[in-house]
Amino acid sequence: MSHVHNFSAGPCILPQEVLEEASQAVKSWDNHGLSLVEMSHRSKAFVAAMEECRALTKELLELPDRFEILYLQGGASLAFLTAAMNFLPEGGQAAYADTGTWSAKAIKEAKHAGRVNVLTSSKDDKYNHIPEVADVDGDNAYLHITTNNTIFGTQYAHMPQTTAPLVADMSSDMMSRRFDPEPFALIYGGVQKNMGPAGAVMYAVDRARLGQTGRSIPSYLDLEVQLGKDSMFNTPPVFSVYTTLLTLRWLKALGGVEAIQARNEAKSGLLYGEIDRNPLFEGHAQIGSRSHMNATFRLVDDSHAATFDDAWNKANINGLKGHRSVGGYRASMYNALPLESVQVLVDVMKEFERTHG
Amino acid sequence: MSHVHNFSAGPCILPQEVLEEASQAVKSWDNHGLSLVEMSHRSKAFVAAMEECRALTKELLELPDRFEILYLQGGASLAFLTAAMNFLPEGGQAAYADTGTWSAKAIKEAKHAGRVNVLTSSKDDKYNHIPEVADVDGDNAYLHITTNNTIFGTQYAHMPQTTAPLVADMSSDMMSRRFDPEPFALIYGGVQKNMGPAGAVMYAVDRARLGQTGRSIPSYLDLEVQLGKDSMFNTPPVFSVYTTLLTLRWLKALGGVEAIQARNEAKSGLLYGEIDRNPLFEGHAQIGSRSHMNATFRLVDDSHAATFDDAWNKANINGLKGHRSVGGYRASMYNALPLESVQVLVDVMKEFERTHG
Repeated sequence: MSHVHNFSAGPCILPQEVLEEASQAVKSWDNHGLSLVEMSHRSKAFVAAMEECRALTKELLELPDRFEILYLQGGASLAFLTAAMNFLPEGGQAAYADTGTWSAKAIKEAKHAGRVNVLTSSKDDKYNHIPEVADVDGDNAYLHITTNNTIFGTQYAHMPQTTAPLVADMSSDMMSRRFDPEPFALIYGGVQKNMGPAGAVMYAVDRARLGQTGRSIPSYLDLEVQLGKDSMFNTPPVFSVYTTLLTLRWLKALGGVEAIQARNEAKSGLLYGEIDRNPLFEGHAQIGSRSHMNATFRLVDDSHAATFDDAWNKANINGLKGHRSVGGYRASMYNALPLESVQVLVDVMKEFERTHG
Repeated sequence: MSHVHNFSAGPCILPQEVLEEASQAVKSWDNHGLSLVEMSHRSKAFVAAMEECRALTKELLELPDRFEILYLQGGASLAFLTAAMNFLPEGGQAAYADTGTWSAKAIKEAKHAGRVNVLTSSKDDKYNHIPEVADVDGDNAYLHITTNNTIFGTQYAHMPQTTAPLVADMSSDMMSRRFDPEPFALIYGGVQKNMGPAGAVMYAVDRARLGQTGRSIPSYLDLEVQLGKDSMFNTPPVFSVYTTLLTLRWLKALGGVEAIQARNEAKSGLLYGEIDRNPLFEGHAQIGSRSHMNATFRLVDDSHAATFDDAWNKANINGLKGHRSVGGYRASMYNALPLESVQVLVDVMKEFERTHG
């Protein structure tokens, strides 16, 4: 059977051994005599899995004790609202950096909770870079950033230095690189890139900062309620949480985030090297803002697109089409993508240069 | 290998063939060369699966054209809020029937959207029956009911007749029996009982009734937004939706809701017959309010509880402990539970009578 090189932007590639173990658990989970998805979420076995998943998340992200972990539903799209409901006080304001489609959505939802101060935006440049953020003072409850912009292929090289705490959507680079958690009040992200199958969203919450908005929050959106129930306020997305646990175990066995970061930098280095070297291609994102997760690029001469598309399709490459708002190509190189897949893509690009250069 | 008789209240038993097909899809989905959970939700294959799932839901529930189907996240717990945000106008009120823990939660969340008029409650009787509901007039935007009360083992034998439209949480009896959809404006329910694995909640919405609250609704909670994106406003819970589709296909092949209703009535008839006949047991729910999904009962003399527990455990019966707020036992007999499992339980009860009667 031919191997597919999966560059999908998300849902996306997961480790093969994780998929095999998850598949087995759907049939029959360990020695329980039942499928994982047929058992009560209050069973000892699943409660233990949820607790291990929460603890391992904290360990792998090297978060200090003040953070607590939740695995909820609704994706980052609901987290945009949840973040603002829990951290933007009644009558207060929060600062937002607009670095892409998902930042813009975060801004839209936050307006349901209070005033939003959009500090900076790279929209007029087709979101091709991460703009500088000046200090954000304490008049803002927080500064919200989107650490990696999947669609445009940009990523914060360093987190902004601000007086106000940071709230971050890390959906597409969570667990892909180390970062200093010190400035953060809240980190969240859908699991469906580096962490697991779609259906769960992770929140790392500084619990001491909750309960200060003066607002009555609906229960599902209230992070204090969710923490008070140990991430089991209602039936959790059992399969997504369990498979995330398997992926985190895989990551830990590999050496954790530091080890995967080195691999990710090798992959992105290989591909950006080729984009910069090969005269037939050009990158979308500015060099200082390039993402290690999603590389966006295009053909300098678009008239050969059909031939290039045919070539990568023949090489069993999947999911390389760029998002409609950028066009061109997007190679998503999440944690589980092997270097070999990037090499296959680079080889196709080299061969394309040889035949069409 | 000994077969487990799975009476869990939810997440709960699913058809064995569905679990095997879902397990296979997690490893490698049909001829796509990738796992179901590694593929983009925008891929042709997954879009087709979502559309088939939505269409089959409508077909099996025999819903008229005015209804449209969504599969979202957040469970019924978030749907409590979503229902009120979309159907309770600013400054208006809605009527609620309080028939159990989940009704009470629905009432609590609806208060975030407007005035809640609790028409009736069986709380003082430990929720052991479904109280009569008088006509609900047009001053109420809707009457909200919980059609089946998992914890207390009660179920509406007939839907209330009211002037105001009905909004119903059918989490624990959806797809288990036929009903007339005519009076409904909204039907919703977590899939993790009769429909699939935890992680998705189904909404059947009368679209023409949306957009009349005068309220600005956050995007994830706005059913018009979700319908405008064909249930793909954001990444859906891929595994839960796909496995729900497999379960619905299984149900259709079996003869649909009418056929499963006959099976369910045979199962509940067998168990309630034994509860009423066997002098060592008594039911919790009043006879006219008994649920076909969850039978609640207890030992008349609790001093033999350890022996009885030992007996059903030895018979490979799983999940029979009652909810802590009721005590005793609860046998959940969802669609996928075979009659044979109920027979095993009845046999254990008979044997217990023989040895301890």
